Amino acid sequence: MFTYGNRLRVQVFGQSHSAGMGVVMDGFPAGIPVNTEGLAAFMERRAPGRNAFSTARKEPDKVEFLSGVVDGVTTGAPVSAVILNTDTRSKDYAKLADIPRPSHADLAAYFKYGSHRDHRGGGEFSGRLTAPLCVAGYLCMTYLETLGVRIGAHIASVGGVEDDRFSLEPAAEELLSPGKKDFPVLNEEKGKAMQEIILRAKGEADSVGGSIECAVTGIPAGTGDSSFGGMEGRIAPAMFGIPAVKGIEFGSGFAGCERRGSENNDPIRTDGTRIYTETNNAGGLMGGIANGMPVVFRVGIKPTPSIGKEQKSVSLSRMENTTLVIEGRHDPCIVQRAVPVVEAVAALAVADCLL
Amino acid sequence: MFTYGNRLRVQVFGQSHSAGMGVVMDGFPAGIPVNTEGLAAFMERRAPGRNAFSTARKEPDKVEFLSGVVDGVTTGAPVSAVILNTDTRSKDYAKLADIPRPSHADLAAYFKYGSHRDHRGGGEFSGRLTAPLCVAGYLCMTYLETLGVRIGAHIASVGGVEDDRFSLEPAAEELLSPGKKDFPVLNEEKGKAMQEIILRAKGEADSVGGSIECAVTGIPAGTGDSSFGGMEGRIAPAMFGIPAVKGIEFGSGFAGCERRGSENNDPIRTDGTRIYTETNNAGGLMGGIANGMPVVFRVGIKPTPSIGKEQKSVSLSRMENTTLVIEGRHDPCIVQRAVPVVEAVAALAVADCLL
Amino acid sequence: MFTYGNRLRVQVFGQSHSAGMGVVMDGFPAGIPVNTEGLAAFMERRAPGRNAFSTARKEPDKVEFLSGVVDGVTTGAPVSAVILNTDTRSKDYAKLADIPRPSHADLAAYFKYGSHRDHRGGGEFSGRLTAPLCVAGYLCMTYLETLGVRIGAHIASVGGVEDDRFSLEPAAEELLSPGKKDFPVLNEEKGKAMQEIILRAKGEADSVGGSIECAVTGIPAGTGDSSFGGMEGRIAPAMFGIPAVKGIEFGSGFAGCERRGSENNDPIRTDGTRIYTETNNAGGLMGGIANGMPVVFRVGIKPTPSIGKEQKSVSLSRMENTTLVIEGRHDPCIVQRAVPVVEAVAALAVADCLL
Amino acid sequence: MFTYGNRLRVQVFGQSHSAGMGVVMDGFPAGIPVNTEGLAAFMERRAPGRNAFSTARKEPDKVEFLSGVVDGVTTGAPVSAVILNTDTRSKDYAKLADIPRPSHADLAAYFKYGSHRDHRGGGEFSGRLTAPLCVAGYLCMTYLETLGVRIGAHIASVGGVEDDRFSLEPAAEELLSPGKKDFPVLNEEKGKAMQEIILRAKGEADSVGGSIECAVTGIPAGTGDSSFGGMEGRIAPAMFGIPAVKGIEFGSGFAGCERRGSENNDPIRTDGTRIYTETNNAGGLMGGIANGMPVVFRVGIKPTPSIGKEQKSVSLSRMENTTLVIEGRHDPCIVQRAVPVVEAVAALAVADCLL
Repeated sequence: MFTYGNRLRVQVFGQSHSAGMGVVMDGFPAGIPVNTEGLAAFMERRAPGRNAFSTARKEPDKVEFLSGVVDGVTTGAPVSAVILNTDTRSKDYAKLADIPRPSHADLAAYFKYGSHRDHRGGGEFSGRLTAPLCVAGYLCMTYLETLGVRIGAHIASVGGVEDDRFSLEPAAEELLSPGKKDFPVLNEEKGKAMQEIILRAKGEADSVGGSIECAVTGIPAGTGDSSFGGMEGRIAPAMFGIPAVKGIEFGSGFAGCERRGSENNDPIRTDGTRIYTETNNAGGLMGGIANGMPVVFRVGIKPTPSIGKEQKSVSLSRMENTTLVIEGRHDPCIVQRAVPVVEAVAALAVADCLL
Repeated sequence: MFTYGNRLRVQVFGQSHSAGMGVVMDGFPAGIPVNTEGLAAFMERRAPGRNAFSTARKEPDKVEFLSGVVDGVTTGAPVSAVILNTDTRSKDYAKLADIPRPSHADLAAYFKYGSHRDHRGGGEFSGRLTAPLCVAGYLCMTYLETLGVRIGAHIASVGGVEDDRFSLEPAAEELLSPGKKDFPVLNEEKGKAMQEIILRAKGEADSVGGSIECAVTGIPAGTGDSSFGGMEGRIAPAMFGIPAVKGIEFGSGFAGCERRGSENNDPIRTDGTRIYTETNNAGGLMGGIANGMPVVFRVGIKPTPSIGKEQKSVSLSRMENTTLVIEGRHDPCIVQRAVPVVEAVAALAVADCLL
Repeated sequence: MFTYGNRLRVQVFGQSHSAGMGVVMDGFPAGIPVNTEGLAAFMERRAPGRNAFSTARKEPDKVEFLSGVVDGVTTGAPVSAVILNTDTRSKDYAKLADIPRPSHADLAAYFKYGSHRDHRGGGEFSGRLTAPLCVAGYLCMTYLETLGVRIGAHIASVGGVEDDRFSLEPAAEELLSPGKKDFPVLNEEKGKAMQEIILRAKGEADSVGGSIECAVTGIPAGTGDSSFGGMEGRIAPAMFGIPAVKGIEFGSGFAGCERRGSENNDPIRTDGTRIYTETNNAGGLMGGIANGMPVVFRVGIKPTPSIGKEQKSVSLSRMENTTLVIEGRHDPCIVQRAVPVVEAVAALAVADCLL
Repeated sequence: MFTYGNRLRVQVFGQSHSAGMGVVMDGFPAGIPVNTEGLAAFMERRAPGRNAFSTARKEPDKVEFLSGVVDGVTTGAPVSAVILNTDTRSKDYAKLADIPRPSHADLAAYFKYGSHRDHRGGGEFSGRLTAPLCVAGYLCMTYLETLGVRIGAHIASVGGVEDDRFSLEPAAEELLSPGKKDFPVLNEEKGKAMQEIILRAKGEADSVGGSIECAVTGIPAGTGDSSFGGMEGRIAPAMFGIPAVKGIEFGSGFAGCERRGSENNDPIRTDGTRIYTETNNAGGLMGGIANGMPVVFRVGIKPTPSIGKEQKSVSLSRMENTTLVIEGRHDPCIVQRAVPVVEAVAALAVADCLL
């Protein structure tokens, strides 16, 4: 299911090697300007082939709007955008029709769709589908800015090396600073250590994963709903729609769960005009509902399953064990490319809550 | 929002101190027997007032079916069940109308509903609402068993002490064994260490949290959907509907994300008749779709926010800082009581995927 | 599926002969007073056994709120209400387990649920389920009044005799006047002619159907959505959730469709402050979106299928043709009892659009 | 909202004068062949500019699939298709930005979206958006045929002249016969009378409406759900998603509602192997659920609001009364072009029920 949202319905389509990919945003508000330069810069943060940490596949990822935008402003009609695929080397994937790549979706797709699935480059399970997600997310961020809501993310860890965390109530400058760097971290020293880990894995035909912290400021207190309608339950399935995400935690997360109540509870304070908490272990959410503090969460990104090393797999046609060496181009680490995707998908979820 | 599911729509209602609570299951299949003894035993696992680790509030939690069941078998009509509240000491909560309890939903409910909210005992945000969830979950488990699907959970950690993990492909006996114990762990030694931690926190008018591991076996390969419709994205919002859940991770989770691809990938093997993986770091899910291995995940349960210690809070009416000592009855730890709730809610999510 | 709505999720449960029926309203706003006397009076309009035109089944239809209401005001938590069934003569229905009643849901329920269905009194397909719908609808009307939205309906026709139609922009007095009469029509003369038709059918062990016109005033211009999200597409499935509804038309409806454009188009006018139309053939909706004129529609109510005359049917167990004489108590006409139900269900749909 | 469906999520996008239009089908099954010739022929039935009864706008309506189809067969990934707009004369519509056309969506769009709306040619409210709907519907029909389900429609009436009705259980030949004619009726004599009415209206710079009957055979008994989930409630909002539809009735419809129960009830019979009804006043649906007889319904199509005659309207900028003469190209009748659209949209609804 490539559809997300209730009030804003976002539908993504495309495969790694289809003619094109795209996104439709049904319910997007009228009157929001589409900044094509800003969008191109945002897309560039996700794009492949830009540095040594990413796959060599080169894609211009040029976005063409087919509907919903007139004279650079949204009209209220569904906004649709298309990105054509250009650099598709389908031959690289011929062998994979029979031998599923470990920890890719190949095997699951085979179980679900049988021989009709598009196995080329992971078909619709490919990380390439995050490109149209970024288009939708960028537009949502433009909309959210008109409400005073800002979203920023950074690499929280790679291969066990941890970045700093956002401060308690990060200003826009802090939130957006990682996105302006080639390698989106808060602490440059930590970033360098991470890069070394990635290049070492690459040198050994291997890959490495990590995690991303995301913060959203300016969400009005009272946003969200109780129980199954909580913002956690709206953000989480959006994040799990990103390939490679294997976990999500809010505020102090799993670590906070091992603490005492007296350590993890957030003291409530007022300065006479507004109510806030001294710590934000709740991640801005109580009972699913925003309390006015930043909504903060962390997602885990598994190591890229495509590696150059020989791996165990099976031949589906012969139902026998075999080995596989994946050729072609891979990312030794996708955490850095996933940072804008996490921002984009957070924007979809938050916009859906606020519309 | 107390509604969950697409094909099976489950709606929970009630507040901690309302006349009653209940659940409606719209779309539940016809012909499923309702084992009232089994249900009572399951409810007892969650019930308060049963041992030193739980609140002293005593509730019989007697379940009365109003519709959807004739002669002990479901008919296809919406199944509805009601539980009356009996032991409600609303006076304990009078002060809390003005002074929100830290890290409870009190403050968020105030922001969302203003003075009309039911503040008594946390209103609809109370953990008591997990009782009707257990009714719905138990019926779903009965249904799932007819499909060969089994669900089991255990305490994975409390206060930093970790239990063992389920084995790679746990049999029914292993899955269900923790639920037969007073304190649902796999390793009794570890359980004792956890109990000491809980009683020590209790002695200090404090609380402690932890985490729960859940495994679901027998889900047919190919179940679930790609991207936003993945089983992670179906299970996660269900889990975040449980009060106190702050994180969820599948398979090797956050720890696996820090590994190399060569360590985290699951080698694919066949014995000539079925395809399986040698490890299950994927938690049974690839690209959102079941691969035939057990679906395994862990949720973090924050420490109970109700503690006896003095805490900082504000008076909403006077908008000034104050302190708060929560009286009444609390749970020093709810992880053990949450284990059947996690099973129940997993059953809702999996049944919704399989119907 | 007994669930309706997106922002306000209403779930009905119960069967004709189950212990009870009820409704849950998830998403109902906080701060709305529950006028129990007004509710009782509204329920009385739908109740059976009140006059010669209805079934002799007597039900007090006493409404008990289990949650969501504190001190007579809604809290924002799901509002739940239960009505116990009392006058259930299940023996009357024993034969019907084997011989489905023509044009009832008996046969379809058999195909869908097999032998597990509750055949007594039509099970969950019974018109009795409209009682909890009226509870939900009454609360929605209370909420809508706070927005200046009013809903009224009347019998538009019975057995070919047509009532007058609402005027172009009916005031509250006109809208609510039919509901204050024993037989809810605008024109009393026409009402008497209808009553004669009903009593004649009753005397011949037969039944008769008709139609209901409903108008909703005060919906802000711009409400609703384009295409599949239009108010027609929101109201229509709500109405088809009422047993016996077989058609719906908006504004000039099917008759208007046979006209010329020049006759059916609504001339647009302004008095300098507001824009209106000189006629309302559009029924207040253009492209699915409210234009500020009253939303007007008509629904067709088929003749009660339960009649005393001998009818052709089959024995399901023996798969052979037979005849059936339905004993027990029936309504010779349900159009008059359906009028408050149409108002109630319209209120659900409009509230869902406006929340 | 341009999104329809639960299991099959169809999202349409585009405006009358945008760069392109299209449709995404998320959840469409794998392994269904895409017959591009059959599709082109189906599209041709809806296309403008083909005869004297339609607008002179000429559009090739060439369909390009961007994803979800490999080697002419669907893969299980979302199927997306794009149609570029070519013959757009936006100048014709310049005046309409200020003066809304009576009974078009212009005024409602102004209320909803303000000055940002795309007023050119009705924007996203244009009948042109039915072109991508036909692409989606054609694929659904291909899928439904694999299940033995067939859909056919014909003009039921134009300007008061009525066509014959489908027979009780129409064979495929009968169902599909109207679609093979230039003017899709069952009875050619009646068709000629309708054509005269259309040409007379055209000669007088006017338009005329009518209605369409649609029948769906082969739906398995037991399909659909009770109450709000009934097939009526699934089909109706789909139909109201078609511009100009103002009413829908099932089986004997409004006329049947004025009858006696003894006349309108469908006698149930068996030949020993299957159960059927002697008449089909129920339109194949009882309690929302298919009973195995054809599902039959009729929709009303209002006269095209675009007419050449002078009409009353207002200047939005000056808020004063004025008159309007709509220039450009119009359809004197769209009922004949709407026939394949009704078939297509019925296919969306039925496929969503059966998936």
